[in-house]
Amino acid sequence: MPPTQSTLLWIILGASVGALIFAVGLARWVLARSAGTPAMRVISDAIQEGAEAYLARQYKTIAVLAVLVAAALGIGYGVLRTSLATDPVNDRTVFAFFITVSFLLGALSSGVAGFMGMWVSIRTNIRVAAAATTSLNAALQTALRGGAVSGLFTVAMSLLGVGGLFAVLSNFAPAGVDAGAWAQKIPFLIVGYAFGASFVALFAQLGGGIYTKAADVGADLVGKVEAGIPEDDPRNPAVIADLVGDNVGDCAGRGADLFESTAAENIGAMILGVILFRTFGVSGILFPLVIGALGLICSIIGVMTVSTKEDADPMAALNRGYYITSVLVSVAIFFACKWMLNTPDAPDAWWHFFACAMVGVATSIAFVFITQYYTEYRYRPVLSIAEASQTGPATNIIMGISVGMESTVLPVITIAIALVSSFMLGKASGIMIDGKAAGGLFGTAVATMGMLGTAGYILAMDVFGPITDNAGGIVEMSQQPANIREKTDRLDSVGNTTKALTKGYAIGSAALAAFLLFSAYLDEVKNYINGEIHVDLSKPQVFVSALLGGMLVFWFSSLAIRAVSKAAQSVINEVRRQFREHPGIMKGTEKPDYGRCVDIVTVGALKAMVLPGALVLLFPIAVGLTFKYLGGPSEHLGAEAVAGFLMIATVVGILMAGFLNNGGGAWDNAKKYIETGVYGGKKSDAHKAAVVGDTVGDPFKDTAGPSLHVLIKLLSTITLVLAPLFI
Amino acid sequence: MPPTQSTLLWIILGASVGALIFAVGLARWVLARSAGTPAMRVISDAIQEGAEAYLARQYKTIAVLAVLVAAALGIGYGVLRTSLATDPVNDRTVFAFFITVSFLLGALSSGVAGFMGMWVSIRTNIRVAAAATTSLNAALQTALRGGAVSGLFTVAMSLLGVGGLFAVLSNFAPAGVDAGAWAQKIPFLIVGYAFGASFVALFAQLGGGIYTKAADVGADLVGKVEAGIPEDDPRNPAVIADLVGDNVGDCAGRGADLFESTAAENIGAMILGVILFRTFGVSGILFPLVIGALGLICSIIGVMTVSTKEDADPMAALNRGYYITSVLVSVAIFFACKWMLNTPDAPDAWWHFFACAMVGVATSIAFVFITQYYTEYRYRPVLSIAEASQTGPATNIIMGISVGMESTVLPVITIAIALVSSFMLGKASGIMIDGKAAGGLFGTAVATMGMLGTAGYILAMDVFGPITDNAGGIVEMSQQPANIREKTDRLDSVGNTTKALTKGYAIGSAALAAFLLFSAYLDEVKNYINGEIHVDLSKPQVFVSALLGGMLVFWFSSLAIRAVSKAAQSVINEVRRQFREHPGIMKGTEKPDYGRCVDIVTVGALKAMVLPGALVLLFPIAVGLTFKYLGGPSEHLGAEAVAGFLMIATVVGILMAGFLNNGGGAWDNAKKYIETGVYGGKKSDAHKAAVVGDTVGDPFKDTAGPSLHVLIKLLSTITLVLAPLFI
Repeated sequence: MPPTQSTLLWIILGASVGALIFAVGLARWVLARSAGTPAMRVISDAIQEGAEAYLARQYKTIAVLAVLVAAALGIGYGVLRTSLATDPVNDRTVFAFFITVSFLLGALSSGVAGFMGMWVSIRTNIRVAAAATTSLNAALQTALRGGAVSGLFTVAMSLLGVGGLFAVLSNFAPAGVDAGAWAQKIPFLIVGYAFGASFVALFAQLGGGIYTKAADVGADLVGKVEAGIPEDDPRNPAVIADLVGDNVGDCAGRGADLFESTAAENIGAMILGVILFRTFGVSGILFPLVIGALGLICSIIGVMTVSTKEDADPMAALNRGYYITSVLVSVAIFFACKWMLNTPDAPDAWWHFFACAMVGVATSIAFVFITQYYTEYRYRPVLSIAEASQTGPATNIIMGISVGMESTVLPVITIAIALVSSFMLGKASGIMIDGKAAGGLFGTAVATMGMLGTAGYILAMDVFGPITDNAGGIVEMSQQPANIREKTDRLDSVGNTTKALTKGYAIGSAALAAFLLFSAYLDEVKNYINGEIHVDLSKPQVFVSALLGGMLVFWFSSLAIRAVSKAAQSVINEVRRQFREHPGIMKGTEKPDYGRCVDIVTVGALKAMVLPGALVLLFPIAVGLTFKYLGGPSEHLGAEAVAGFLMIATVVGILMAGFLNNGGGAWDNAKKYIETGVYGGKKSDAHKAAVVGDTVGDPFKDTAGPSLHVLIKLLSTITLVLAPLFI
Repeated sequence: MPPTQSTLLWIILGASVGALIFAVGLARWVLARSAGTPAMRVISDAIQEGAEAYLARQYKTIAVLAVLVAAALGIGYGVLRTSLATDPVNDRTVFAFFITVSFLLGALSSGVAGFMGMWVSIRTNIRVAAAATTSLNAALQTALRGGAVSGLFTVAMSLLGVGGLFAVLSNFAPAGVDAGAWAQKIPFLIVGYAFGASFVALFAQLGGGIYTKAADVGADLVGKVEAGIPEDDPRNPAVIADLVGDNVGDCAGRGADLFESTAAENIGAMILGVILFRTFGVSGILFPLVIGALGLICSIIGVMTVSTKEDADPMAALNRGYYITSVLVSVAIFFACKWMLNTPDAPDAWWHFFACAMVGVATSIAFVFITQYYTEYRYRPVLSIAEASQTGPATNIIMGISVGMESTVLPVITIAIALVSSFMLGKASGIMIDGKAAGGLFGTAVATMGMLGTAGYILAMDVFGPITDNAGGIVEMSQQPANIREKTDRLDSVGNTTKALTKGYAIGSAALAAFLLFSAYLDEVKNYINGEIHVDLSKPQVFVSALLGGMLVFWFSSLAIRAVSKAAQSVINEVRRQFREHPGIMKGTEKPDYGRCVDIVTVGALKAMVLPGALVLLFPIAVGLTFKYLGGPSEHLGAEAVAGFLMIATVVGILMAGFLNNGGGAWDNAKKYIETGVYGGKKSDAHKAAVVGDTVGDPFKDTAGPSLHVLIKLLSTITLVLAPLFI
């Protein structure tokens, strides 16, 4: 017997509320740990203060922008646009209301999730540092559970938002529309939620990314290179800004990124579920949310199983947790498929879709391995960069760029296989609509769900990175004994690996989700025009839009990279000024003014994020409207051009992000490899060359690359929301 | 009265033979100049010897590869493939014969054109050096006319090849096929010519590009950086290899590039002309060749008008010549349109197409300005890189990459406007087929013709670059007085600018030509399947192919850049060995062994070009065949997937080439700007940082970037030739 809508909603909302409660409990557990020595607390308090001040200002800026966009949406839908007969609701004021409110709700939820995650993370740092004075296991568990608060909060909020909106709206069916027909309209009304989430994510990731790398590059160039003091040295006025950066960039930024990934993926998959309504009923629409709910529970179990022995490799413990989560998710999906996608019309469908989900799980594991291959110094790519460092910075850079470009090959082949095989599996599922095999796109959607099923765990592992990084900084700055430092160093280096892995995961899932999202976009367009639409590249207008879409990625990357360079320059000037005017700082007799550096980076990052962000918002709109008016009325050229724009921006974005992330990661670890003593070790010429590569890689891997993940999905959600305007 | 086929063929063949004769005369004029002092001759002879030895071996390697491909084509078409009713000739042996022979002919012509051009260039170097001892004007004219030999030879050979093949084949109409119907088949039979030309061009550009930059980077890193001797110092054992590189890379490489550009564009435009046969008859098919012929004559006039005063800027003289050529080409196209495209069915068509051609001319001028903006140190981009050099190599690299990425914006917008406006002009021309406006694609083709009309002059200006570079090297090494060096330095710096400009022109024309070529491909596919084909990105298989196409560009660039790094490494080791084992070299008492360095680079470059070249050949075939067999029999998924692959590879290729070319050019000139004395001038830390950027930029702008131009067109011509196999 197929499950009812209310059963499914109970599961979804129950699991998300349960996960939120669990996250609060976990947060209380973390906060109950020892808060370290007074010396540690001084530093930790400074980080907290800086991070909270930055986030408050960042969210204030984003809030202003979000209100502007909401107003534009409301006016666009409610006043400027004339209704179509195919609109999900006939009254355009109501339509505008749903779109605008769900946008604001998505933006707000993303902000809350990001803020909560970071609130806990910056309080976890010091507790990890304190725990390291007792045992490695205690430190590991504290860090991971602190990260899990962020991970669970993010995924649960996203699920609660989409599921809750669906539940609320299902009570507002217009007169004369039955529950089933109305359920098919709801996904189109709540696309605003995904857009709101992506909107906040873009600015959070971009602003945070610029912040973290401007502080890092600035602190390094003037501290390590000019003044010759080590990293995290308390005499460096930019050191607190650097530690703050880890939180606002990696932590809040990536959290926002995955928040919108799950939100957008869920809504996109629901739209594709609508196509199969005749076969699966409301089960098809709510299936993605149920998988998300189950994944959340599996992630909780996975996180709680992680523990390590004092002398074991903490990475092995984290990997074990990841594999446990993956297995649990697979089992859960198996039963979900059997329960929800079992229909007499197509008796083999459920296991075909289960196979699709396994393709997704396998894809995420493949991405983990590929990323490791390109960014760890056990393998050829990083070793070749280290080797090239012997002939100076130029050859280091050339080799790094070559490695970064090459690193796009295997992920693309993986994505290609995943998409085509899940499509073919779905198509072979036996579901027919109007005599044609129709399950293909839903198959790719299920693969995406499989990949995102472990998102909660992955995010916990990701936030683990900045937490341990900060814990290391606190231990270093408060001058703890060497054996404690050794523990936090081990965790920190594991954190570097997990950060690289989640970036690989994020781009892989972004690629799958993007395909799902533009399938949803085309489906939405078909709904509105009540006919077929192709994205025919052989039309010059579509080809030109594709070219413009690819160009946007280059332009955006250029702006993001340059923003870091500019903001770093102001940090450098400030640190130089402090050293010059207060010679006591270098002697250790005078305390540097950390706050001013924090302020400068804050202002710089916020200013710099607006232009690239606005570009991403306005460019697709300009393309859509231009070609709408250049084309004939029945050609739907605007909608088609936007689709071409979106798809090629996605293709180029995937490639560019892979290049930037992996190139940056490889440079980083080539330097670390030389620091183990190879080619003359630290202070050798090879090391100096490797430091240049590492610095170049910083804005690649922590600003432009991760922002591109968000860009890809933001473009999809913008077009989803604005599709009716282009028609 | 419309012109007859034989009139048109007489014009085409007459102009190309005339231009060849003129080129021979010009070569004799150049060779009759003074061949300089014995000291100069020693150096010049060494360059000649090295360049000829390299080219001989390169062509031997390419010949082997070409024969393999020809055999594969012959077997594929003549044995493996079953005939279709829509084939241009029914007998598959005859079909295979035409395709294979035209491939070999294209390959051979490209080789001959490249060899002839370089043969003259390496003899012009020394004559420019000698002429500089008398007057600047004499040196300028000698250099430009030497370059023009190469330019005219290239364009005329290409025209002669395509026109000649057409003329020959027009006598072989099968029984029962009338002349008009047969004329529409011929373009499909000679597509092999364009493929042969692209095939040779790819290897020539790739091998030459790797050669020139491996020698340059190697010579610089070990000479300038390690040993502290100036550029072109005779004590550097790699100096001759470096000078040889300029000839085989810039000269032979770019010649092959533009040879295949014109060949491919002509054949592609002829295929589009076939669509309009009902309106224009054979005039539409031969129109591109006539424009080429007229452009050739205009280029000759343009070259001969160039002269300069002793104290004037030689760049102004070259620009004047370019503008004269552009104006003459415009006038010639005006009359050609009025004569050939004037039809009572669509009385406004001729001036619409003339307007399209003007769009092309305007596009090429826009590219010249944009390239100047991004690569000259009068403007913001280069200045920002120079400024960033003050904080070291890392910030120099970050800024350079940012500038390179940004530099894709304006060219893409230019291409977008050019394509859309010429398409709309063509569509508005009044030509109707089956009641639908049909002139759009032909309009974009005419814009491409307008852009390529000045190819002869542009190529002369481009080859001017390596000639003056070499002349400067000869003057430097033979220790001529300062006033002569000052003259060759001025010409050399002009040569740097012209090289950058032609790269911008080459990528712009590649973009337009590529659109034309895949329109031709789709048209060809329609011919074979006798129905419509879309390139629908919303199909996962097509999207995946697009993703793979984009990835190919990253992969290829990675391989090309790495090849330079590897080959440079072997040069460095050899130079170090010579310095170590023969201490007399640095003292100036012993002559270094130039030949060994030349040999080492030769072997390294030839070995390194095979893998990326093979990748480009095999990847599209693999994509086409995979999706042909994965898709159903009537879906034509193979042909469609290949189209998606091709188009997105083109989009990404255009973007990546722009990034690499302009980024590299900007780094180069940022260094030159600092050398004028800014930020501490030569030997300052800022200069050292700028040298790092310049070195990184070398393989970008002279190996990977230019090879991507060829890659784009090679992909188009491969798919044109293999289209029947994917169906």
